[in-house]
Amino acid sequence: MEEIKNYRDHVGSRLDKHYKTTLFQSERLMLGLNCLEPGQEQSVHAHNDQDKFYFVLEGEGLFTVGEKQETASNGQTVWAAAGVPHGVKNNGTIRLVILMGIAPAPVKK
Amino acid sequence: MEEIKNYRDHVGSRLDKHYKTTLFQSERLMLGLNCLEPGQEQSVHAHNDQDKFYFVLEGEGLFTVGEKQETASNGQTVWAAAGVPHGVKNNGTIRLVILMGIAPAPVKK
Repeated sequence: MEEIKNYRDHVGSRLDKHYKTTLFQSERLMLGLNCLEPGQEQSVHAHNDQDKFYFVLEGEGLFTVGEKQETASNGQTVWAAAGVPHGVKNNGTIRLVILMGIAPAPVKK
Repeated sequence: MEEIKNYRDHVGSRLDKHYKTTLFQSERLMLGLNCLEPGQEQSVHAHNDQDKFYFVLEGEGLFTVGEKQETASNGQTVWAAAGVPHGVKNNGTIRLVILMGIAPAPVKK
């Protein structure tokens, strides 16, 4: 496995729904990208036993965390603790690129 | 706890050694910043039971992961799996700012 990756080499896009890719993964942590074209969204959901963070790299998104909704752009970190409903919508005009981590990692199917 | 933080509000500096701060923490994951002034370094070390990532936000650093040494700058993600020695030196001319995650989180002392 490579130990160093530039996120820009892993950005992608889908027409039907937002694009997800994994950069690194162990049992303890999954680190990846979420890429949302304008108008795309990740529906609000919760992980009962996993904490998650989003770190905005490009663009901006309207994040939901629990009862809160806030627009976040480059440099902002969003924390969704286990059990807290969270999601994001790209309500901007350019692609939203997010570094995303989940701990522990989802079980591979 | 705030759910959204801009990393720029948490950047800092120390003269005697590199600056570390925590953005978010649970048992499963600690997310924070490492800020290294030019010449400062985080010595090579390993965590036996924790995976770690570095994501370079500003500046550039010479990263060691296992037997590998490589300079990484903005947008590059460095993965150090449990047991793999890793460290970083700021061999550049400006402050190196790194988003850093460890899973599971270190036990608070």
